[in-house]
Amino acid sequence: MTALPPALEPTLNGIAYRPASLSFGPVVADIELAERVFTTALAPYRTPLAPLMQHLRHYRGKRLRPALVLLTAKAAGSITSAHHTLAAAVEMIHTATLVHDDVLDEAETRRHVRTVNAEWGNKISILLGDMLFSQAFTITSAVDVRACKFIGEATNRVCAGELRQVCERGNLHLSEADYFAIIDGKTAALTEVCGRLGALYSGAPESVAEQMATFGRNLGLAFQVADDLLDLTGDETKAGKTLGTDLEQQKMTLPLIHALNKLPERDAEELRDVLRSTDADKRSNVAAVLAETGSVIYARRRAEEFARVARTALECLPRSECRTILEHVTEWSIRREK
Amino acid sequence: MTALPPALEPTLNGIAYRPASLSFGPVVADIELAERVFTTALAPYRTPLAPLMQHLRHYRGKRLRPALVLLTAKAAGSITSAHHTLAAAVEMIHTATLVHDDVLDEAETRRHVRTVNAEWGNKISILLGDMLFSQAFTITSAVDVRACKFIGEATNRVCAGELRQVCERGNLHLSEADYFAIIDGKTAALTEVCGRLGALYSGAPESVAEQMATFGRNLGLAFQVADDLLDLTGDETKAGKTLGTDLEQQKMTLPLIHALNKLPERDAEELRDVLRSTDADKRSNVAAVLAETGSVIYARRRAEEFARVARTALECLPRSECRTILEHVTEWSIRREK
Repeated sequence: MTALPPALEPTLNGIAYRPASLSFGPVVADIELAERVFTTALAPYRTPLAPLMQHLRHYRGKRLRPALVLLTAKAAGSITSAHHTLAAAVEMIHTATLVHDDVLDEAETRRHVRTVNAEWGNKISILLGDMLFSQAFTITSAVDVRACKFIGEATNRVCAGELRQVCERGNLHLSEADYFAIIDGKTAALTEVCGRLGALYSGAPESVAEQMATFGRNLGLAFQVADDLLDLTGDETKAGKTLGTDLEQQKMTLPLIHALNKLPERDAEELRDVLRSTDADKRSNVAAVLAETGSVIYARRRAEEFARVARTALECLPRSECRTILEHVTEWSIRREK
Repeated sequence: MTALPPALEPTLNGIAYRPASLSFGPVVADIELAERVFTTALAPYRTPLAPLMQHLRHYRGKRLRPALVLLTAKAAGSITSAHHTLAAAVEMIHTATLVHDDVLDEAETRRHVRTVNAEWGNKISILLGDMLFSQAFTITSAVDVRACKFIGEATNRVCAGELRQVCERGNLHLSEADYFAIIDGKTAALTEVCGRLGALYSGAPESVAEQMATFGRNLGLAFQVADDLLDLTGDETKAGKTLGTDLEQQKMTLPLIHALNKLPERDAEELRDVLRSTDADKRSNVAAVLAETGSVIYARRRAEEFARVARTALECLPRSECRTILEHVTEWSIRREK
């Protein structure tokens, strides 16, 4: 086991849980209760598999998805014990996808800690991810069948999105529609279900739950477009992580698709040659083209549009501290540099 | 895509579905309906992922688990549409574990067809397995929350069993209790839930569902002990597949554990040296020791005991063709040579 570096971010139970620019103040105690549901569900597996389960504590990040469930609930009505379970379930599904993603990407570290695959190998990572998926559905069955259906359908979309992304890796002719179909699944399906479930179990009417689903979905889309942009044009020292991995894996993202559509066919083919190459200065060469074609500005505008739709959906809620935080989360999703 | 060899076994919809010695006669039409639920659930993903979804048709075997759900239902009461959904769900979970197992084992063929990982790579296999798990839970949510809970808990046990097995690979001091804990999860949890759900939704009383759970669990244990024995001592030409893979992967099974406990410490250490070696004649050397220590007989007797408990549990059912088939399945589980 590799020792952990000193925490770089505010901590909850000794675990870094959010960037300093984001505060989940009014629901921090509820996030902690959701954490307990998460830990308790895995407790029976601790004895034989203790170090593995322990390692999961370090594997998770800012608890954005549990926070979305709980903030939406409190902003739309009130938090119930169903929310703690649902917040734990979405975090389990998210963690499962991270554990499997790290196998897919052969990643060695995540959030300054060695990945499960680096430490225990791919086999254990695959099975641990499976276990997390299964546990997520099991704990959801303690809520009701409607929650099982929504969580199941969201997870189907996540898996289908990831599957399409892997199938399309290296397809330098990916359309914008296909790109959006991929991120709608892999990212937005889960944030959508967070908003929906948060409202649905808070006592709010069905129409508010629909609005919160719209909020969550568009927040996810905004977040992912901004994330993809960061990978292409962000500053590594500010981000504190390696960028350009999408380029390395020939994963097509919005600015690239826009540039290829904008350029005359001959120039587009030249850009594709650059994308296929393994040049050391590939990232800066690509960035120069993206600046010329206005593709960075285009992608940023699209992210801002999604964020605007998300913010508009929040307007059906009465003004409250939690609603304001949800507005901040939306801003943060497109402004963050890491 | 590799072309399929001519079917070697009886087929349903052109797919080999059962060994010639097993007949699911009275529920074959219901197995077909469960197949349709399986296929329909994956239909939305066909367009972009068509060849992958198509390939799954060849990936499954004798439809033992759907047959267990349906035979138990018909023997204990009557088959309802819930059973078709549940039969499809357990088959999806089983298929998901097969897809992930083939990644874990780096297997290249399964049932004479190239594995998903051999054809499409590990990444797609991992995500396809995730999708199957997720779909299984989603379709179960169309039944009721109790079904979600039972399917979820069974899948937790499957994953925990597989996880322990991988963690214990190469542990040549594995105890008999640990071995049974592993197979109770990886195999018996799913056959147990098949029996339980079959009875539970057939109109039978709770006490019959408990007996059918006991039947399924012990059938699974009998099946797995016999399967492990086959791997060590079976005839490859009769089995029609490579045997000895447990030995190759240093997976400890019941006859080996028994022999190591039986032998004086020095001889046990010698056997462990053989198990660690990569000798070409490892399998025949081990078989000779197992014969001497009576370990093959011991393991066979244990399998027979589980089969006896399974058969006894069936006695609460009225005599019927389906009950007779369940008795045959129990016999087949310990007598089969492939």
